[in-house]
Formats: sequence, structure tokens, C-alpha cells
Amino acid sequence: MAQRQKILIDCDPGHDDAVALLFAAHHMDLLAVTTVHGNAPLADTTRNALAVAELAKIDVPVAAGFAGPLVGKATHAASIHGRTGLDGADVPPPTRKPIEAHAVDVIVETARQHRGELVVATIGPETNLAVALRREPRLAGWLKEITVMGGSTARGNVTPAAEFNIYCDPEAAAIVFGCGAPIRMVGLNVTRETGFNAADIARLKSSGRRVATLIADLMAFYLERQRRAQGLLIAPMHDVCAIIPYVAPNLIEYADAAVAIECHGTYTRGMTVCDLRADAAQRNARVAVKSDARPLIDLVLDTILQYA
Amino acid sequence: MAQRQKILIDCDPGHDDAVALLFAAHHMDLLAVTTVHGNAPLADTTRNALAVAELAKIDVPVAAGFAGPLVGKATHAASIHGRTGLDGADVPPPTRKPIEAHAVDVIVETARQHRGELVVATIGPETNLAVALRREPRLAGWLKEITVMGGSTARGNVTPAAEFNIYCDPEAAAIVFGCGAPIRMVGLNVTRETGFNAADIARLKSSGRRVATLIADLMAFYLERQRRAQGLLIAPMHDVCAIIPYVAPNLIEYADAAVAIECHGTYTRGMTVCDLRADAAQRNARVAVKSDARPLIDLVLDTILQYA
Amino acid sequence: MAQRQKILIDCDPGHDDAVALLFAAHHMDLLAVTTVHGNAPLADTTRNALAVAELAKIDVPVAAGFAGPLVGKATHAASIHGRTGLDGADVPPPTRKPIEAHAVDVIVETARQHRGELVVATIGPETNLAVALRREPRLAGWLKEITVMGGSTARGNVTPAAEFNIYCDPEAAAIVFGCGAPIRMVGLNVTRETGFNAADIARLKSSGRRVATLIADLMAFYLERQRRAQGLLIAPMHDVCAIIPYVAPNLIEYADAAVAIECHGTYTRGMTVCDLRADAAQRNARVAVKSDARPLIDLVLDTILQYA
Amino acid sequence: MAQRQKILIDCDPGHDDAVALLFAAHHMDLLAVTTVHGNAPLADTTRNALAVAELAKIDVPVAAGFAGPLVGKATHAASIHGRTGLDGADVPPPTRKPIEAHAVDVIVETARQHRGELVVATIGPETNLAVALRREPRLAGWLKEITVMGGSTARGNVTPAAEFNIYCDPEAAAIVFGCGAPIRMVGLNVTRETGFNAADIARLKSSGRRVATLIADLMAFYLERQRRAQGLLIAPMHDVCAIIPYVAPNLIEYADAAVAIECHGTYTRGMTVCDLRADAAQRNARVAVKSDARPLIDLVLDTILQYA
Repeated sequence: MAQRQKILIDCDPGHDDAVALLFAAHHMDLLAVTTVHGNAPLADTTRNALAVAELAKIDVPVAAGFAGPLVGKATHAASIHGRTGLDGADVPPPTRKPIEAHAVDVIVETARQHRGELVVATIGPETNLAVALRREPRLAGWLKEITVMGGSTARGNVTPAAEFNIYCDPEAAAIVFGCGAPIRMVGLNVTRETGFNAADIARLKSSGRRVATLIADLMAFYLERQRRAQGLLIAPMHDVCAIIPYVAPNLIEYADAAVAIECHGTYTRGMTVCDLRADAAQRNARVAVKSDARPLIDLVLDTILQYA
Repeated sequence: MAQRQKILIDCDPGHDDAVALLFAAHHMDLLAVTTVHGNAPLADTTRNALAVAELAKIDVPVAAGFAGPLVGKATHAASIHGRTGLDGADVPPPTRKPIEAHAVDVIVETARQHRGELVVATIGPETNLAVALRREPRLAGWLKEITVMGGSTARGNVTPAAEFNIYCDPEAAAIVFGCGAPIRMVGLNVTRETGFNAADIARLKSSGRRVATLIADLMAFYLERQRRAQGLLIAPMHDVCAIIPYVAPNLIEYADAAVAIECHGTYTRGMTVCDLRADAAQRNARVAVKSDARPLIDLVLDTILQYA
Repeated sequence: MAQRQKILIDCDPGHDDAVALLFAAHHMDLLAVTTVHGNAPLADTTRNALAVAELAKIDVPVAAGFAGPLVGKATHAASIHGRTGLDGADVPPPTRKPIEAHAVDVIVETARQHRGELVVATIGPETNLAVALRREPRLAGWLKEITVMGGSTARGNVTPAAEFNIYCDPEAAAIVFGCGAPIRMVGLNVTRETGFNAADIARLKSSGRRVATLIADLMAFYLERQRRAQGLLIAPMHDVCAIIPYVAPNLIEYADAAVAIECHGTYTRGMTVCDLRADAAQRNARVAVKSDARPLIDLVLDTILQYA
Repeated sequence: MAQRQKILIDCDPGHDDAVALLFAAHHMDLLAVTTVHGNAPLADTTRNALAVAELAKIDVPVAAGFAGPLVGKATHAASIHGRTGLDGADVPPPTRKPIEAHAVDVIVETARQHRGELVVATIGPETNLAVALRREPRLAGWLKEITVMGGSTARGNVTPAAEFNIYCDPEAAAIVFGCGAPIRMVGLNVTRETGFNAADIARLKSSGRRVATLIADLMAFYLERQRRAQGLLIAPMHDVCAIIPYVAPNLIEYADAAVAIECHGTYTRGMTVCDLRADAAQRNARVAVKSDARPLIDLVLDTILQYA
């Protein structure tokens, strides 16, 4: 059996973050989870990360990070994820606490200990990783890859131009995309088409399995909210798309691109300006352009159903 | 026979502008042509407009307008349209001159004389129309509609975010899109898919007709340049798409949207930020989302072939 | 006797504009007055220009121009100039009307007829002159000098960074300051220190002369408003400071500078960023750094007292 | 004797930083020194801080912080401070090293241990303090005051609008000025007028004292560079001005103001937009408006002369 890819997930659970955690923990060597403001305030995303780990018996250190972006105020997404950031089911409150160390230190230390081997997945606002990159200038050179759920090659969600994770901290995203490490970005142009439909949720629910049933309830809530707020007919699995390539490399197609983060526009702050025709010298990321949505989602469903 | 729609065309010929002029002159009541900087410097676009009119025996006043944008310097597109703005064939130089009046005055006066009946088509940078709207605040109320070739609901061409016409004068575009008149916008998302292929050009060429043959040579040049510069496999008929709806209303599908012009971004200046999910109160334009490209192009070809 | 300097004044009266008109008409060859939005809406500033001219028996054509800035909405200063733009005295309504021609055409034509000899004074928002410069690219070369009341080498008034005239249309100011003609700018750093005190106003009032008495009433109103709104202890004669150098060349000291207009800042839109240490190649304006306020104001008072 | 004010200095030595360190160590309870990019790269500013401490036998922990700003690339001031950041004399290289802890952690921990009692002086780019404030949201509430050398109520130095420290990291400055803690800011408008003249430097030099002699040589270099680059006739003691108020409260006069940091302008990025007439509710800082320069400089000189 091939060695499992080492991964650290920086996240803001969030419904789709929860699925990404379950997926990564099952298939990969999940070394640490760090939490950040985003879908909900930091206290909530941290509690949710702990709760999901405990629910699924995932033994991984969870460290809390930044409660807001580098510049300006925090934005949350209660209209999508509810008051707790994980509404829709009674996820048992966690009995464990986050570790003492700050997310930034955990990112730097984990990368230092696994030089050249670690993937950092940033599936929320990129504040923690940005500060880590600035704090330890060698960090970019230590990482095997950064995999980002964020942005879009086309339209946004939180504004017509910007996707939520990048919008929440554009300056942080500018740091990450400018850091020089290999970057893989999957954005709304792919993730919005890659989600659970009602039948998928019913399949989880009818399994009778503890984790799958609870995830089904969460996803039903999330699907309804996405329908209302974004007019979507599926519950998009944004975050797991950033993890998929390390497990099933052919389900998402990437193209080399130059990605710039707009920090200054009146209507475009937080936009990922993707130049898919950039010269090789300007390219800084591999950007997802297409997913094979059905097998991808089936793989995610099958994984959830593996949990007790 | 239904009455022909009155139209004034503000343009920067330019290969696709030439086709738009031929198309409008054949099907509509073309009251005036005004010229602007854009695909080439003003002196060239004005000469080209006169030359195309004379070639096709179109009897219409041509008035020159602004040689540059409101703010900053003029941008031209010699890589697409060649040194003259209309490279690829020897279009006979015009014997007539533009009228004395300035484009801005012609726009205002034509609208005043045809209150409620005039469509203004702006198929180059929008400087002339913008100044006209500011100079005569009643102008917006006098127009039946403004039809714009410009912008995009998705990617740009001159930059990853911006389309050429809007990029050339974002402040002017902001004035136009904020003026309150009914606006119809067709952007790259549609026009890039709506063009002549090699067979279409061969059809024009083999017709033996004077105008069609010359247009064929122009289009062959333009197709080659679009291939080189933009990687396109067709010669996009950007500009005629703004005229089509008044002749064949069902060939382009529009959606109500809020369109904001980004004037301030680092990477997004000149972008048309289209919100296709905006509330009715915020909508300021009907934005093209799809064309029925084959019949549209056939209609354009058939029209060109009507010329002697 | 030396020949009088030919001047065209583009203004938005406004209390201090009125004084500038009286001053210029008395000492210079005032060829035309053009009006613009600014201290009050265009209809008011145009009426006020006509009224002041008629009051003082100044025979000069008055032409109306733009009712708003190039980009965005018009800003007015009713808190300073009152509801009519010239509150504080019953200025008799004018019996004449503005001429038919638009301010932009008047500026261009006057400059064409007096090539190399005309000074244009822009003492309101610079929309008219900006459009004239864009509309007739040769205009900058025809002007002897542009004299601007606007901006500041230090603090602003309408915002901490921006002075009112420039703030009202930063894009227009960017056009003017980038046009290449010789530019003389007097800003708040000088004009705020150069005004009528209560004794000056009393001197006008007690003269018993018709024009001086009415101006005294206007200035009393204006002084009170400046005190309330800006904390000033004098009624600043902003606009006349732009005219003074052609009559009394030594009363204001200028320094060569590079002046850039900030159009894009969050807190600094409309600021004149003055680099008083710029290299010769970058300089685009002579910027006022000091006035000899007392003799300057005395000269203005003496002039007003010349009117019947 | 009154208790000495506890202080932590975040700095980028730098000639004037060196003087500020000597001054604070003599008069105050200097708990820690943290270093940051700025006048020179981080490695140099850290070495210089250690070297100055060792030279003057100041026993204080020195911790290194950020090597660059939150967003964009680091800017240095070799034209002012030379290649090493402290050119002009052979300051003996330090034998000690910075402590292990990162500047951000040192700031947070020092404030935690001395809640309500600590002043943090930020006399370089504000990256360290900004990240500390974001990392520990309670930090702002723990600080007695933040004292800033940075910005200006008038002109800048590195650009016409911006002062060096703020320009080096505007986003960090925006975080600091928005944090809610009491802030005292002294900017160029005061510090440029508050410096050593040639006689002051001669007085240090002729003292024969080891530290004073070396400081004299440093200041002679610095004065010459300030003369060349900024046209100054004194060696401005920017940084010590931020420390003075805790030792001699009456030497600098402050006014309550609203200070906004411009992060977005074309010509004004890094400007401190100071509103000295802001409503009480908007005020976020006490801004220096005047210094009693001679006694202030004499106090600094006398202090330096106290060192062996």
C-alpha cells in the first residue's frame, strides 16, 4: 500500500469542512487540525472541529488560530451554516479541548518536522497560514504543497466577484498566493457543481450508521440553506474538493494559471483573478477547471459510510 | 412592414465594427455614426467609419468624438486590428469627411429630435456617450435604449478580468451603466462564441460580390490575429451582437442583472461585475447570457451578401 | 499702460467666486464666464454668476456647463454658501440668460481665438475644463496658463485630506493636472489664511456703496458659516487668490511642484498630493506656498469699493 | 521616587531607534525589546538592537519578529541608515543572541503579565504589534497605552504623503490604530523639527565618554544622510519622541484626533489621515502637534551623557 499523504487541515467548520475532515482522516495521515474564523466565530469553529473529530473518533490535535482577518472585521456565514456553524443536527459537544499551542505555531512546527512531505489544506479564510508564512519565511520552502478551497475562475458567492473564504481575508490570501510554494486551488467554478443531492443525503440517512445519519441531517439543513441563499440544487462539497486530489488524483482537472488576489477594488475585493493563459513565468497555482462530480461524490459518500 | 428601429452607432472600427455598420445600415434606420478612440486612434477609426460607409454606399453622417478616455491614456488594439485599425484589405480611402459637429453634440441632438425612439449602440469605449449623458442630464430620459457591446459576465480579454471596450474607459462605462436609461449589454461571454469560421469567410470570398469579398479579406486577417492573440478559432462578431436584437429578437438571450463597473481595482479595473441574482431594485441592465450563434452568424453573412 | 491679461473664469458662485468675478472684471480682460456644479447646483451657480455680473454691470457672456462630476454624484456646500449658493443678501435676480453655447465649447472657442494669450481660471470643480481638454486635445497647447483654486499642500476641508473643488470631481482634476499646460495652483494652505475679517466687512458695509454693501452682507453670512463649519475666524477669499497673480504678481509666493490627484484612496479621494521636492522633470504645477495676506485683502477690498 | 513606567519597545534600529533605546533604558522600566524589518532587514535590526544594548550595558531580552510586512515586500532605508542599518561607527558586534521566543509572543506575554501597566512603543513598522493584537484579541485591553512613532499630520518622507514606518506596513498600522487601546502618535510634523544639530553632536563627541562618542559618530553619519536625502539641517530624533512623554510629559503637545490609515490610494498608501477636528466618538489617538524641541533634545543629550 502506498504511503498516505501527510496533511494538516486549516478549517472553519462549517458543514462541508466536517465532511472534508472525515474524508481526510479516513484516507490520509492527518497530522493536525487548526481552526480559524470564517463560517462561524472562532470559538464555534474550534468547538465544531473538536466535536466532529470526537464524533468520528479521529485522534488528531486541534489548535485554535485567528479570530478575525488581518485587516478589517470578521465575516461569518450564519445564513448558510446556522447559528452554531454546524446547525441541523445535535452534534454532541466535545469533551476535549484544543491544544495550548496557537495554530500558527502548529503549522510552522508540523511543517518543520515534516519538511518536504506536508500538504497544508486551507479550506477557510487563510489568516493562519498567511501569518505562519510571514512569521517563518522558510515555511514556504518546507511545504510539499498548499491546497486551497477558495476563490473562483468565474463568479463568486458572497459577492458577485468574490468567494467567501478569500473575501474573509484577501490580504491573507495575497500572502498565500504570493508565497512561492506549489499551490493547488479549487474554487466555486468546480465546487458549486460538486455536491450532495437529496438522494445522496437520503442514502446516508437510511444507512442507519451513527456518523452517516448525523451527517445526513447536517447536509439536509445545509442543502436547504444553499437553496435559499444561493439558489443551488445540491449541497456543494466545497472543502472536500481540496482534499480529493491526494486520494483520487483524476477526479478534478487542473490547469496552470496565474492567480492574483484583488485587495483594492470597490466591487471586487477578495476576487481571485485567474489568468489561465498566463506565461509559465507568471503562473503561481494549479487551478481546478473541472470535476468528475458523480464519482467524486460517490467516493465521499462511501467514505462517510465507512464510519461507525 | 414594421417600422425600422432608429439607431445611432458610436463605434471604433475595427473589423467587427465594420460588420456591425453594414448590418445596421441594411436592417435599421441608421441616423448617425459617431467615432471614438479604441481599436485604433480616433483619426483612424473615423477614417475607417467613413470608408466603410462609402464602400457600402451607406448615406449617414459621421461625426468624430473623443480621442482618449476621460481619465488616463488611450489604449489601442493594433495586435488585433492592425496598424490602420482595419488591416487585411485595401479599403478605398474615403472621399467624404466627418461632419463639423462633435460626436457628443450629435448624440444629444439626435436623441432630442427622436425622443423616446432612439437606440444608441455603443460598440467601442463609451467616452462619447458618457460625456453626452453628463452634458445633457435629460439625455438618459430621451433614449429608448442603450445597447452596449462591452464587458463580460465571466472572463475578460485585455486583462483576465476586463474586456477591451470597458477597460479603455471604465469611468465612462460607470457613467453609462449608472445613467438610468434601459441598457442592454452583450459581453465576451456571448460574443466570443459568436463569430465567423473559416468556411464562413470562404463563403463571403467566393461570392464574388465587391463588399463581401473585401469583408472576407478583412475577416481572414482578423481571424488570424484573434487566433494568435486570444487563441480563438473563430473571428468573433462582438459588435454586431449589440445590433442583432433589434432585427432578430430571439437570437440572443438576456437576463436582468445589476452591472457595476470596477474603476479602482489593482487587477480588475474595467471589469463589469455582473450580479445575475440581484434584486429587481438593483438591476440596471439586461445582460446577454447565450446566443444562438449559427443562425445569428448566418443572418449576418446573408446581410453582407446583400451588398453590391 | 500694460495690456490687461485675457482671462476666462470657470466658477461655481459661491461667495468667494463672486468676489473673484468682481476683482477680475475690474483689473483684467474678462472674456467669458462659464459655470459648473459645486458650491450649489448648476442652475444656482449660473443664476448667481449672471446676478453678480448684472449687479456690478459687468458685460461678459456667461455659459453654463456641467451639472455634475465626470464620475459619481454632485456634492454641494449649502452649509457654507446657503440654500441659493449666495445666501446673506438679496442679490437682485438676473434679467439676462446664459448664452446658448455650452461651457465646454466656450472654453475651447475662446482659447482658439486667443491662442497663447488666454488664462483659464478654474475656481470650482474642474469638470468643464477637463472635458474641454479631452474634447480638443490641442487646447492645452493654446492656453497661456491654467490658474486653479483647489487642493492643498496640507490638510483639506471637505475631508481631512481633500479640498472641496478637487473632491467634487477628482477625475476632472486629474485630467487638468495631467494636461501639460502651465498650471498655477493656490490651495487651502494659502487661501485659508487669506480672508476678510469682521473689520474688513464693516469697512465694505460702511462705505454706503451699493455693490460693497451687498458684498458686505454676503460676506457676513459666509464668515459666520465658515466659523461654524470650519472653525475659521476669517472669511477666506479662496477664489480671488487664483486671480491675484495676474494683477499683483508678488502677493503670493509659488514653488515648483509635482501635483498628483488621488482618485482611488479610501480616505484620500480628491487629495492633491503635492511633492515640493520633485525633480524638474516631474513638476507639473507652480503651487502657492505663502501669501502676503494683508495687502492682498486690502487690494481686494479697494477693488470692491471701486464699484458703484 | 515615582515608579518607573513599564515599557516594551518594538523597533528597527536604525540610528534614532538606538537613541530611543538608550533613553528608555535609562529612565524607564524597559521590560523587553522586540525587533522588526524596517530601516534595515530583520537580521540587521536585531543585531543592532543587541549591539546597542550590549554597548550600553542594558540588560533586556531582545526578541526578533517579522522580516516583512503583512502584505507585499519589505522596504528598507539604506539611504538614511547605511548598509548595516547603523552605519557611521564601529558598534561592537553583540556577543548575545535574541531569545528563542518570537516578538509576537513576547509582546502578548509581557502584556499579559503586566496587565494595565505596560506601554508598548512601536517605533518601526507595526507588523509585530498588529499580529499580536490579532492573535490575542484581549491584548488591546491589557495595554495601558500604545505609543507610536509614525505618520504625520502633514507631509510624509518616503512619499509626499506617507511616513516610512507606516508606509512599510499600512495594513499593520490600520490594525494598530483600529485596536481600541489608547494610542499616542508622534509623527514627522513634530519629529522632523526635533533633532540634533552639529553642535549637539560635537557636544557628545567632545565628552570623551565611550557611548556618547560612538553615538556622536553615528549621528554625524545620520545627519549627513538626512541632509542629502531629505534636505534636513538636523538629525531628527523621530523615535525618542515616542518615549519622551513618559519621562517629561510636557515637552510634546498632543491633540485628540481621528487617525485613519490609507491602505488603498495610488499616491497615498501608508498615509496617516489625521482629523484634528473629529467628533469625540471618532477619535482614536492623541496626535503630537508641537514639541518643545530644545529642552527635549537637551534632555536626550544629557541622558546619553549619563552612559559610561
